[in-house]
Amino acid sequence: MNDNKKLQPTTIIIFGATGDLAKRKLFPAFYNLYIDGRMPKGFNIVALGRSENTDESFKSYIRENLENFSRKKVTSQEWAGFQAHITYFQHQLDQESSYQSLQKKLNSLDEIYGMRGNRLFYLSIGPNFVATISNHIKSSSLASDPEKDRIIIEKPFGHDKQSAIELNSLLAETFEEEQIYRIDHYLGKETVQNILAFRFGNSIFEPLWDYKHIESVQITVAEEVGVETRGSFYEQTGALRDMIQNHLLQILCMVAMEPPVSLEAGEIRDRKVDVLKSIRRITPDKVDHYAVRGQYGKGTVNGVEVKGYRQEEDIAPNSNTETFAAVKFYLDNERWQGVPFYVRTGKRMKEKHSYITIQFKPLPHSTFSDSEQQLSANRLIINIQPLMDIRLQFMTKKPGLSLVLKPVEMIFDNFACQEDTPEAYETLLLDALMGDLTLFMRSDQVEEAWDVVKTIQEAWENSKDVFFPNYEAGTWGPKDSISLVERQGHNWV
Amino acid sequence: MNDNKKLQPTTIIIFGATGDLAKRKLFPAFYNLYIDGRMPKGFNIVALGRSENTDESFKSYIRENLENFSRKKVTSQEWAGFQAHITYFQHQLDQESSYQSLQKKLNSLDEIYGMRGNRLFYLSIGPNFVATISNHIKSSSLASDPEKDRIIIEKPFGHDKQSAIELNSLLAETFEEEQIYRIDHYLGKETVQNILAFRFGNSIFEPLWDYKHIESVQITVAEEVGVETRGSFYEQTGALRDMIQNHLLQILCMVAMEPPVSLEAGEIRDRKVDVLKSIRRITPDKVDHYAVRGQYGKGTVNGVEVKGYRQEEDIAPNSNTETFAAVKFYLDNERWQGVPFYVRTGKRMKEKHSYITIQFKPLPHSTFSDSEQQLSANRLIINIQPLMDIRLQFMTKKPGLSLVLKPVEMIFDNFACQEDTPEAYETLLLDALMGDLTLFMRSDQVEEAWDVVKTIQEAWENSKDVFFPNYEAGTWGPKDSISLVERQGHNWV
Repeated sequence: MNDNKKLQPTTIIIFGATGDLAKRKLFPAFYNLYIDGRMPKGFNIVALGRSENTDESFKSYIRENLENFSRKKVTSQEWAGFQAHITYFQHQLDQESSYQSLQKKLNSLDEIYGMRGNRLFYLSIGPNFVATISNHIKSSSLASDPEKDRIIIEKPFGHDKQSAIELNSLLAETFEEEQIYRIDHYLGKETVQNILAFRFGNSIFEPLWDYKHIESVQITVAEEVGVETRGSFYEQTGALRDMIQNHLLQILCMVAMEPPVSLEAGEIRDRKVDVLKSIRRITPDKVDHYAVRGQYGKGTVNGVEVKGYRQEEDIAPNSNTETFAAVKFYLDNERWQGVPFYVRTGKRMKEKHSYITIQFKPLPHSTFSDSEQQLSANRLIINIQPLMDIRLQFMTKKPGLSLVLKPVEMIFDNFACQEDTPEAYETLLLDALMGDLTLFMRSDQVEEAWDVVKTIQEAWENSKDVFFPNYEAGTWGPKDSISLVERQGHNWV
Repeated sequence: MNDNKKLQPTTIIIFGATGDLAKRKLFPAFYNLYIDGRMPKGFNIVALGRSENTDESFKSYIRENLENFSRKKVTSQEWAGFQAHITYFQHQLDQESSYQSLQKKLNSLDEIYGMRGNRLFYLSIGPNFVATISNHIKSSSLASDPEKDRIIIEKPFGHDKQSAIELNSLLAETFEEEQIYRIDHYLGKETVQNILAFRFGNSIFEPLWDYKHIESVQITVAEEVGVETRGSFYEQTGALRDMIQNHLLQILCMVAMEPPVSLEAGEIRDRKVDVLKSIRRITPDKVDHYAVRGQYGKGTVNGVEVKGYRQEEDIAPNSNTETFAAVKFYLDNERWQGVPFYVRTGKRMKEKHSYITIQFKPLPHSTFSDSEQQLSANRLIINIQPLMDIRLQFMTKKPGLSLVLKPVEMIFDNFACQEDTPEAYETLLLDALMGDLTLFMRSDQVEEAWDVVKTIQEAWENSKDVFFPNYEAGTWGPKDSISLVERQGHNWV
């Protein structure tokens, strides 16, 4: 997270450069870093794609997409500077010769740098190709310098614990752990990073941050969209794997972790793994008590009628894949004993809203108990997106002649001026360029996270007694999600 | 503070009804309570004055002043209703016959009520007359019913501990303690009352409210005005007696008190007395270490040149009366061990601003210590007047690509709509009408508060080595006030 180091010349090699992620996120992020003067002085982006293509036509395709997806405006002058760093390179993922040609290309760039440049391999491709690419990188000696070469991998990191272990060990044949950048883009979001600043940059929150003062924690990542064009991928995945195993558990780690000694990557990642290890593992017979799954039927989102999941493209008409999951986690450690962490995520929910709610315990004794009034519990709400503010809900005197209380909300909006707020990918790519692993997932984090959801995952795969669809598109999910929290006297807030 | 009880018919007898307080505060307060439907169904205001006056001319004088001083607009219809409850009554404070006539007047009103009404005596007169009036009320049996009759007394309650004890024992000859309403109008302010709601209506502040988490507490009551027309009174009083002994110590009690079991008047007043008792008494040789006095010289306030105190009307050209006082208090109890409570008040300060600052301890360990950045301590600021908001200052992530922190402020303004906010006198008069003593000072509170300032008061009276004026009008007071906090590593915030 330190931007003061001088960056070495770097070649960025994007596998899947003609794909959706590259178009929407990667090139816009590099472009914005370039405008901000954050890119290394010498840098080249080698864009790999299967088809034949000229540099010119690829660049004009990129430029066109920048107009739609870049945070900052695209000007002719800045584009002229940026595009000179892009080369399109036709490449077949499974052919050794293709890698050897690439090696020559990279060497020629090194000659221009006058030194062996850093190499940043970005695997913006499906999980099935990771093994192939990794093996070829090794056999063609593309990543021969552990000090200079890094690889960025997109989720999913496997589809369960066993496959994650296999993937990690495969990568370990070519790369040291310190060279591997497993992206969870949620960790690059300003509002998620701010959790660290908020908790550990202030002295007033940490004393309240435990089971003595906190009644429950809620993490919601609600989407309005349905499965869209990802049908065939999503059918094999579902909400638990697609969202809870990574994004929601990572946010949970930020909320629950012990104060780190420093901001060193190893220290932060150790503290996060501690949280994952502390999460109570449940037995298969308890799955229904701790977890709820759902699948959307047809309904109305924002006034528009939408199809049910089973009617979407590439989805089996009797699909049992969950598009909603809610889980209650307990952390069996000193700090969080007995505090439920409720997490939920779903597609086709009532609104797009990701946020964290810290609900504090009620007053031990209410001085104001004489009055008929009901006191609301204190709450801290950290909005992640699209709102990006922090809210503190507390009781105050209602202005007037009697001492009557009312609940109010204090709001702090750090990001009111969106222009200033970098995209998650900008933050993460810059960190990768600089060799800062803090916001990336270490192998043990990934494996522990799979271990956390393992029992639920297996139970849901094995059980056929599921009555889908069980929630209407445009709602907050199935009724069981409400009872999950209500039977403990809580509410989704 | 409960407004649900049915109020008995009440006669309000104002001694000093032609004076400044009655004009600016009392009649406007009664008028606004009347409009709000808060006055008893049967009520009469008997306005006592020395001079001959007709009801008509007195009422037109009151109406004229309402135009200037009433919070709500004066309409013909509402004035017509209100004025019918006012009677002017010529009265000589020191003549027994005057009290006997008054008795007849009050009895005649009781006949109209069809019952012995409540009687509320309001002593809006100089402290020298309290004894006279109290004695005559007793001898003429004006306040013969301890269940129905109450007396409201304005500060000062004596000029030192001994005189306060004497005044209390004199009043006790005529009134039970439960009949005596000693007004400190600061306690009627919405923002001061809100301290109770804020502290005890929420579960998240009380765990932070002690020496473990709080570094210091500051209470500032700064005035822009000078001594104005109060010269002869002020010469005998000074800032310590006029402000610190009452307003500032009362606010300090609200901030520092233990959680009360209930909102019963006795309970709240007990908890406040506990605080006063816990304040460390100092020895005369330590006065200069704990207290600083000042007197304004000429200067500029808000762009206007103003005289020095010694040049004001009715002030001795070599006056040693302090117009500024700052004191450091320690509370020798479990909760507040070692936490300085800095209080300061002055006339002709840079701006009119009354507020409380709770400064929290710095972080025990800063995770962010690598970075060059200085972390600001957390602060809670409770603005009393003219601002009436609550602010929480904390650190947050500066939006951008690096994890750099910046101090920010979260503001909650309960009283943004001033229209709704009753004046302190409305709150206090309604409480007195309803027999709620909570916001008034009990005899032991007054005596303890005098005891707290006793040593400083005597030292300042006895010592001649004072070099006045020592601060320029339009500043924050003498330099010594800065060193009082700076030598402990603090700052006035």
